[in-house]
Amino acid sequence: MKSEYDKIIKSVAAEVVENIVNMIDSDNYRFAVPIGISNRHVHLSSKDVEILFGKGYELSKMKDLKQTGQYACKETVTIASNIDGKERLIENIRILGPMRSESQVEISATDSRYLKINPPVRSSGDLEGSSAIKLIGPRGSVDLKKGCIIATRHLHLSTLDAEKMGIVHGQIIQVKIDGIKPGVLGNVYCKVNDSYVLELHLDNDDGNAFLVKSGDYAEVLL
Amino acid sequence: MKSEYDKIIKSVAAEVVENIVNMIDSDNYRFAVPIGISNRHVHLSSKDVEILFGKGYELSKMKDLKQTGQYACKETVTIASNIDGKERLIENIRILGPMRSESQVEISATDSRYLKINPPVRSSGDLEGSSAIKLIGPRGSVDLKKGCIIATRHLHLSTLDAEKMGIVHGQIIQVKIDGIKPGVLGNVYCKVNDSYVLELHLDNDDGNAFLVKSGDYAEVLL
Repeated sequence: MKSEYDKIIKSVAAEVVENIVNMIDSDNYRFAVPIGISNRHVHLSSKDVEILFGKGYELSKMKDLKQTGQYACKETVTIASNIDGKERLIENIRILGPMRSESQVEISATDSRYLKINPPVRSSGDLEGSSAIKLIGPRGSVDLKKGCIIATRHLHLSTLDAEKMGIVHGQIIQVKIDGIKPGVLGNVYCKVNDSYVLELHLDNDDGNAFLVKSGDYAEVLL
Repeated sequence: MKSEYDKIIKSVAAEVVENIVNMIDSDNYRFAVPIGISNRHVHLSSKDVEILFGKGYELSKMKDLKQTGQYACKETVTIASNIDGKERLIENIRILGPMRSESQVEISATDSRYLKINPPVRSSGDLEGSSAIKLIGPRGSVDLKKGCIIATRHLHLSTLDAEKMGIVHGQIIQVKIDGIKPGVLGNVYCKVNDSYVLELHLDNDDGNAFLVKSGDYAEVLL
């Protein structure tokens, strides 16, 4: 009876180990996704475009971005904070189109330390309670009461990509990056839409901390 | 017989799961270590101090650092790159003492992108093949043929701390950081010495990517 038990225990243990190894090694659980590093940028409302660039001004497209319908404009603005009576500027902030209902400024924590402001980490468009910031254009300036954020790490997926990976819109995942400064980035928000192109959006701080650039790959951990 | 097998299988499976959960949850495998964020800085040779500040000049201590015998000086220098005929400067780089046999400049990847140079990720003192950079002081300048690096993530441990954690000098570990931008930082080099004070040294890019500051804690993953 004892040796019978031993045989069973050994075979169960072997089965458990095999299952675990299969799970860890399985290609089904590993997906490589291309990284897109987002430099600081602004999205503008049509109203603010007119204040910053003049009545009737139309922004010019410089180039299309990877996400369908999104583009970088030729024009840039300056952003400014005013803390303890001192104005701090960052110039040449790229405008991304198309226009939005509300202006939004996305910067890195490095930028926020320079500006001495403390923007929250947020998904695009989630601006309630975000930081005040000033926009300065060639023809005028706008004092935004809110609108400045550090963008949440996020992954754009088409509906097909999402199905393939078993990911649903709003899911929070982790991604793994290899290299000389490797690691795992948590709290990555998944955005699923038919129009999206597979792309992991990280800001400059994440890109520089992990020494990755646009076009490099990360691995989705599920 | 069949139900006898089932009972055994269920009890073995339960035992395996409990062991795994215990291992994961065990305090024995979790150590919190305080983080120290290193801003860009230089270590200077006595020879270079004289060139930069004048013959016989002695640097003044501003404050002691956490690691025994290390201190920040009141003096700063400017560093400069010269790429494609254009000089790019970063001013007010803190000098850390004591003097070393060879001057060394530690910057972040963000700095290196601004300077348009490509320093390797290295441990302090491992300067072979590192980047050229210019040091500018109030009385002179030095063209370092090598000496500029991005510092490897590293953990200082006393011999006692290392024994407690089961870590040996030279071991590569991972650390986990919680928060709104959480994750795991890999390739952390462990330095063990009787004189060391427990401290995880990360550069500004890592600090800003994970939104941590000096005095925050990371968890050692063993």
